[in-house]
Amino acid sequence: MVLHVHDFVTYQHTGWKVLNMELKVPPANLRQFCMDLLVGARVPPTDARVVATVLVDASLDGIDTHGVSRLPVYLKCLQNGRINPVPEIKVARSAPAAAVLDGDHGLGQLVAVRAMEQAITLAAEAGVGVVAVRHSNHFGAASYYCKMAVARNMIGLAFSNSAPGIPPWGGRRAYFGTNPVAFGFPAANSPVMVDMSLTKAARGNVILAAREGTPIPAGWALDAAGRPTTDPREALAGAVLPFGGPKGYALALAVEVLCGVLSGAGYGPRVGWIYDDGVQPADVGHFFIAIDIASLMPLSEYISRMESMKAEVTAVPAAEGAAPIRLPGERRRAAAVSRSREGIPMEPALLSELNELAVRLNVATLIH
Amino acid sequence: MVLHVHDFVTYQHTGWKVLNMELKVPPANLRQFCMDLLVGARVPPTDARVVATVLVDASLDGIDTHGVSRLPVYLKCLQNGRINPVPEIKVARSAPAAAVLDGDHGLGQLVAVRAMEQAITLAAEAGVGVVAVRHSNHFGAASYYCKMAVARNMIGLAFSNSAPGIPPWGGRRAYFGTNPVAFGFPAANSPVMVDMSLTKAARGNVILAAREGTPIPAGWALDAAGRPTTDPREALAGAVLPFGGPKGYALALAVEVLCGVLSGAGYGPRVGWIYDDGVQPADVGHFFIAIDIASLMPLSEYISRMESMKAEVTAVPAAEGAAPIRLPGERRRAAAVSRSREGIPMEPALLSELNELAVRLNVATLIH
Repeated sequence: MVLHVHDFVTYQHTGWKVLNMELKVPPANLRQFCMDLLVGARVPPTDARVVATVLVDASLDGIDTHGVSRLPVYLKCLQNGRINPVPEIKVARSAPAAAVLDGDHGLGQLVAVRAMEQAITLAAEAGVGVVAVRHSNHFGAASYYCKMAVARNMIGLAFSNSAPGIPPWGGRRAYFGTNPVAFGFPAANSPVMVDMSLTKAARGNVILAAREGTPIPAGWALDAAGRPTTDPREALAGAVLPFGGPKGYALALAVEVLCGVLSGAGYGPRVGWIYDDGVQPADVGHFFIAIDIASLMPLSEYISRMESMKAEVTAVPAAEGAAPIRLPGERRRAAAVSRSREGIPMEPALLSELNELAVRLNVATLIH
Repeated sequence: MVLHVHDFVTYQHTGWKVLNMELKVPPANLRQFCMDLLVGARVPPTDARVVATVLVDASLDGIDTHGVSRLPVYLKCLQNGRINPVPEIKVARSAPAAAVLDGDHGLGQLVAVRAMEQAITLAAEAGVGVVAVRHSNHFGAASYYCKMAVARNMIGLAFSNSAPGIPPWGGRRAYFGTNPVAFGFPAANSPVMVDMSLTKAARGNVILAAREGTPIPAGWALDAAGRPTTDPREALAGAVLPFGGPKGYALALAVEVLCGVLSGAGYGPRVGWIYDDGVQPADVGHFFIAIDIASLMPLSEYISRMESMKAEVTAVPAAEGAAPIRLPGERRRAAAVSRSREGIPMEPALLSELNELAVRLNVATLIH
């Protein structure tokens, strides 16, 4: 196994700029390692391959907060029964273009891939397909599922709820999840990928700051008493604020209804937080939409129009002092290109934790 | 005709708090007046009734910027040919659950009602229906179309692009429309209605401020050179900022693709601004989704879950100094109740303008 360890011993603490870290792992090796760990935790190999692929894709894209860094908590939950390693995923209710998928408390990445596959199948027949998902778990980076649609010349939309993070506007206690919203739009070469949580900053960044003991910017969060805080541990016990104030609240509510209320999943405080000591299933809900472009417009015409839009948007003159205009998804694509070539930077603490888990699960460690 | 004119002569200028005005018109009378004006501008009576109903519904809901106040510019455009009074609206392309509607440059409210009707029909058969719309015009308040779905026990989503208002993040020139986003969620009594533009403040508020000569808050807009401004006329010549910074930009782009690129409508600067002196059709695009709840979950179960969520959200303790928590749509519903009873407040300048148009169109004025 080839590893590029330039500065492992003299590693300097770098806040959440994990891009600065010097330990880099080839993606194929990291994918195999993740897969081995999941299999070690009783996940069937075909399912483990799916989940490892989604996790490493997020890490490749530079979304370290939603990639391989989540594996330790998933493994803990697979072992204590909170996540079902062998779910029987099934369609609970279906119409010609709409379905509800019951994830049987399996790994969120697995359940979400199956759900978007179903949405794509429906859209191929009906022009559009929507799939609401119940009894799932944290699904990582929402953009992966949109990429699946984009690969089929479809527009993909992906939504999820999560454990309470965002309060209703004017409230002091979290009710809604951080509720990611993602869109994927095919284009000639580089699709436009929108992926955001509805918080001012993703809770993954707060988790990472808590882990590293660094403060978070003002305006991100409230403590448990509803007061503004810059302490990430207080923020995790309190609430994170939505972007856009009351408009962000309204969007968080809309996503909670689609993913939680309508699907039969948990909603509000019924959604569990897998970092606490409980063992109840998290019962996360998702909502996916696939739109078959060719049902609405000849694909070549759509592509040509998208490329015009992309060119026009990036040609808008920059405001004084602003950086050149970027299209959503550009930064991640650049990260994926560089990380595919140079390897995925890994926080040494994470690698140690995963290697310790490997020993316990009787799986080959990443560094022998 | 009964009018409640309490203080017409001593009317005080009240900024954009049009709720404070004292001239109030019964909704049925205002609807008939709007309909007469549209018929006077060669709109067929059945179509005029639809458009008048949508306009007065927005005014009833207290959305004065998107209701009857838009009628003068619509009438101007109907007369100069920019808006087609007798459109041949037709389905341009269709799949079992998806369609493109060609609005033939008719009034946006008419085209949008036809499109949501189509989405509802598709959803009744397939569980979900999506309709992309080309060659339309400003459709007023997006929530009206979501209410149509809600009345059929469906979740409604409505999106539109509009003339350039929002720049790409870091850009100095507007490219995207203000791009409203609306959701309607059925409930036992009071549905949850989300309706927002993607700007920090609706451009309608900027138009109203320009009309009244009042400044706009800092942070809403840029002037034509990309500098922050509080002058509403400079803002209309420049750009309005999205809420949520780069996240708002990404949402504006997503809505522009769905409504403009995918539908075959205008997008970016191809969308016309009906307040300028041009006569080219605005070529606005919309996108509608209807989701049939019963396809996914027994309706009674969904309703019970929604009511639980509503009760729980409003029971979250308020932050220090904050007002009680409101659900999206509550304020509009309260306005509609009070305006149904007491009449719709009208700005005297608007009433004068409409009455002058009535004389020119040979239609009965609202005050004889």
